[in-house]
Amino acid sequence: MPESPTALEFYFDFSSPYGYLASEKIDEIAARHGRHVEWRPILLGVVFRATGCAPLTQIPIKGEYSLRDFARSARFLGVPYTQPAGFPIATQHAARAYYWLHDQPQSAARAFAHAVYRAYFSERRDISCLDVVLDLAVRHGADHDLLAAALAGETLKERLKDECAAAIGKGVFGSPYIVVDGEPFFGADRLPQIERWLASGGF
Amino acid sequence: MPESPTALEFYFDFSSPYGYLASEKIDEIAARHGRHVEWRPILLGVVFRATGCAPLTQIPIKGEYSLRDFARSARFLGVPYTQPAGFPIATQHAARAYYWLHDQPQSAARAFAHAVYRAYFSERRDISCLDVVLDLAVRHGADHDLLAAALAGETLKERLKDECAAAIGKGVFGSPYIVVDGEPFFGADRLPQIERWLASGGF
Repeated sequence: MPESPTALEFYFDFSSPYGYLASEKIDEIAARHGRHVEWRPILLGVVFRATGCAPLTQIPIKGEYSLRDFARSARFLGVPYTQPAGFPIATQHAARAYYWLHDQPQSAARAFAHAVYRAYFSERRDISCLDVVLDLAVRHGADHDLLAAALAGETLKERLKDECAAAIGKGVFGSPYIVVDGEPFFGADRLPQIERWLASGGF
Repeated sequence: MPESPTALEFYFDFSSPYGYLASEKIDEIAARHGRHVEWRPILLGVVFRATGCAPLTQIPIKGEYSLRDFARSARFLGVPYTQPAGFPIATQHAARAYYWLHDQPQSAARAFAHAVYRAYFSERRDISCLDVVLDLAVRHGADHDLLAAALAGETLKERLKDECAAAIGKGVFGSPYIVVDGEPFFGADRLPQIERWLASGGF
């Protein structure tokens, strides 16, 4: 089958359970079809202002189901999962640190993103905390003081704002939102559709 | 594996695209594991008043995606699908007619429900129209005048109200909502989880 080298675009928020589940699968799915994935953290709070939606767990009746579905879907996919005590939380430090790492030569941004997600969803760490984000980033090659200075400055804030605005402009309304050759897929439950799309170039 | 004879509960609204997709699959999935399914139409408008949610297609940004996802998910599952021109629509006539048929001896309520869904989602018929509902019901054994009289009366209206209230009381917040031995599953995309749950008695 002919394959385009275009990377998949993977939009997610670091406090999104289904984003976390997708993060543990999307690279291997893409790789099976000779493709790479661009990871693009965004802030669901910003997106929700555009759609008028609320975090799942805050919706009456649906909220309780969601907590059960997060854990069950994780078991279904074979991904470790512990519901965080604080949920959802602010993820701007983590998202900004991701883009800062991303722009470094020989970046470990992908490994950092995995570490942030796993810290939050299976190690009970509070990734809204600046020190936790710095600690994880330093373990992935960041210079503590340089990153701390960047996180305190305006440039990196603008960078994340621009990423969120660009994502909304492309139609992103939730997490995970994955684009394959222009075709958008929303939700970890669309991974089987993504796999078939990659295998057949659409269906 | 030990199997309980308890029927699956399948809650749906006749104007729900994902409910329609599930309706074309759920009986065969249950049958593979020696199980039956109880079909229970409800009104999403009533449910949405409890959750504060809106129909998917009316949500900014997400709405456009949803239309694409309805059709793509239908292709993924191999189910014929044409987006209805009027959407969503009122389905109380169809739901009431279903329960009326359901309560008849030797009822063809299941076949009627399939016919209503297919009329709406692949034959471009307006199932909000009383005459269309009566026509479909008569084809499935209903006496036209008896059903027309029942649809005009209070008893059947109360029956549907009670069904909706009971469903909300059980945690139903959308369509399709399927309960397997007390475990709730929301969405046609949860069919693979339902299949595994039936096969293993949970996971």
